[in-house]
Amino acid sequence: MIAKRMEGYVKNNSAIRMMFEEGKRLANLYGKENVYDFSLGNPNVPAPASINDEIKRIVDLVDPLTVHGYMSNAGFESTREAVAASLKKRFDTDFTVNDIIMVAGAAAGLNATLKAILDPEDEVLVFAPYFLEYRAYVTNYDAKLVEIAPDTKTFMPDVKALEKAINVKTKALILNNPNNPTGVIYDEEVIKEIALVLSKKEKEIGHPIFLISDEPYRELAYDGARVPFVTKYYRNSIVCYSFSKSLSLPGERIGYVAVPNVIEDHDNLFTAIVCACRITGFVNAPSLMQLAVERCIDEKCDLEFYDKNRKDLYDMLTELGFECVKPQGAFYLFVKSPVADEKEFVQAAVKKNILFVGGSSFACPGYVRMAYCVSNDTIKNSRNAFTELAKEFNLK
Amino acid sequence: MIAKRMEGYVKNNSAIRMMFEEGKRLANLYGKENVYDFSLGNPNVPAPASINDEIKRIVDLVDPLTVHGYMSNAGFESTREAVAASLKKRFDTDFTVNDIIMVAGAAAGLNATLKAILDPEDEVLVFAPYFLEYRAYVTNYDAKLVEIAPDTKTFMPDVKALEKAINVKTKALILNNPNNPTGVIYDEEVIKEIALVLSKKEKEIGHPIFLISDEPYRELAYDGARVPFVTKYYRNSIVCYSFSKSLSLPGERIGYVAVPNVIEDHDNLFTAIVCACRITGFVNAPSLMQLAVERCIDEKCDLEFYDKNRKDLYDMLTELGFECVKPQGAFYLFVKSPVADEKEFVQAAVKKNILFVGGSSFACPGYVRMAYCVSNDTIKNSRNAFTELAKEFNLK
Repeated sequence: MIAKRMEGYVKNNSAIRMMFEEGKRLANLYGKENVYDFSLGNPNVPAPASINDEIKRIVDLVDPLTVHGYMSNAGFESTREAVAASLKKRFDTDFTVNDIIMVAGAAAGLNATLKAILDPEDEVLVFAPYFLEYRAYVTNYDAKLVEIAPDTKTFMPDVKALEKAINVKTKALILNNPNNPTGVIYDEEVIKEIALVLSKKEKEIGHPIFLISDEPYRELAYDGARVPFVTKYYRNSIVCYSFSKSLSLPGERIGYVAVPNVIEDHDNLFTAIVCACRITGFVNAPSLMQLAVERCIDEKCDLEFYDKNRKDLYDMLTELGFECVKPQGAFYLFVKSPVADEKEFVQAAVKKNILFVGGSSFACPGYVRMAYCVSNDTIKNSRNAFTELAKEFNLK
Repeated sequence: MIAKRMEGYVKNNSAIRMMFEEGKRLANLYGKENVYDFSLGNPNVPAPASINDEIKRIVDLVDPLTVHGYMSNAGFESTREAVAASLKKRFDTDFTVNDIIMVAGAAAGLNATLKAILDPEDEVLVFAPYFLEYRAYVTNYDAKLVEIAPDTKTFMPDVKALEKAINVKTKALILNNPNNPTGVIYDEEVIKEIALVLSKKEKEIGHPIFLISDEPYRELAYDGARVPFVTKYYRNSIVCYSFSKSLSLPGERIGYVAVPNVIEDHDNLFTAIVCACRITGFVNAPSLMQLAVERCIDEKCDLEFYDKNRKDLYDMLTELGFECVKPQGAFYLFVKSPVADEKEFVQAAVKKNILFVGGSSFACPGYVRMAYCVSNDTIKNSRNAFTELAKEFNLK
């Protein structure tokens, strides 16, 4: 008696659950320390201590009717001002309180934005590989997600293919930078190329193409790499941000949407996103957490922990003969499967107690995603298992 | 460039904003204490002190990776167990952890539930007057909200009209008990009648009709009135609960959906609601707040405050000749407009610095909603203004 449209999701959910149960079964059988689980993108460094300090200060000092109460659906003005000020300081942007909407995480921000702009039959473009949930988000609003095939040499966006994919139905392009699942950072050069193509095509098709930048991994950048701030390069940009990774608060559902004041039809778009939050049941971003991130806006969790894992896992895998683009962001490695059908590789790994996710789950078969948000010991201890796996596939 | 489907919401949002600005203008002009604002359903008693105590204890004692981290999309097992145990104790139900989904408030719960069950062209019934946002919630999933005309004598559900309104497209009935905007509590007798009709009609049409009970006001019941727990009376019931009013946490977005294990297709329905939370961007209910309500599950905010306001405002209005069903729940009075077009009444009141909302906003013109979640002084001080208003309309 569930909706026909939900049947696929429910079925797929069972598959994920089976994977999860398999992990538990292995841990029970061999001990948790002998299972090398790289399947989940779940932050594993704690939130900065200041978050909990500020939470305690807020509940002690601020009126409970404010701390836990309703505010404007767009969020506390003070929080939105803090976000705008931080962005100005870091990226020399000129957002004000009227351009920032606090939302319940980037997934909420994406959904509210898509609800605000999409009519049935509209098309939304995305570069593969990508977080497969985007397909659900776009389908929620009766529009169509159109994939642009990956450039598997570099996993940078294929801008020529983007140009070809745009037509009069194109309403938006979703960009995920740093990228899940590849960990690649799209640099300034490619962002400029994308901006050029979108600007040209907007004129051709006679309406804006929104560049929706999904940036939960923005602060997870290594080797001094910089993640370009898209609104500096392209007028019709919308940024969906989450504090899930930067402050290790994934369970709290807290982030923002930034809508630059130069964007086409700014006021209606801003209001439409706020209304979308309301009518889809989000209402507002969690209040105490808004006040907490406001006070910790420029803090970061321990990035060196992730960076060390990145280097250790990358070095180990490449030493053993696995092929992988060295990523500079997020907490993922996207490793080439030594056999064409990556499911075979995933299965062989499970037999050695190594868990990771096939690239088909990111619209890029022939690869696998390894999430290195694990303890460093997990990486160290997995060496023998990976060595055997490499041997099995005759690497090196 | 916003979605065509959003244009109406954006326009309507401007109307609400104008009302809000009018309130601010009056407050600036006459002083805040000389404006009697009964327009907002915004809890104004603080959360119980134990909530803040528990928040501090949790951030001090529980691992931050747990406090702020991801958990199963359905919520922490310990929180779901606490909800199930509390319901068992209070209503002798037999929910388990497998029947409770923590959600970001009742609005989130309603949306996830509707997403889980609705296909295009399905119909959802609701008794007028009702919270108008239900229309948006149902329309989000391409289904149709069908209103059942109010019985303005008692504002109890018209069960005969319900029976007539059911057809093969009917997928659900939304019940809001205690009711916004009337404050009326639907008693056991009428819930039994509704259950009887739904059970009979399910057999006729050959598929379940879900009774979705939206219960953010459940604990706000006065005069010893009891709000029947629907799952005790009807098999295919789903309860959407929020802690917004009971614990005065409206900004925190925390509640649950209860799906009894006897419901048709329980496991798929449960999974579909959890998946719906995920793919619409909710992901999970805010984590720290889950742990906080778990520890304060049977606490309540100061209900006597609301009760005193209810009596004082009701007594004053009826003394002055206004007509109103005496409500036993929530924090609203639904007052008959002395003129057929209630907009005229609303406008006349604004001229006396009294603000309330027309019944047309609840699909029940000819009435107005007054929210008494205000300071008791607001009620006391409004006597002169209401007296003049009564005179203007020749009452008594």
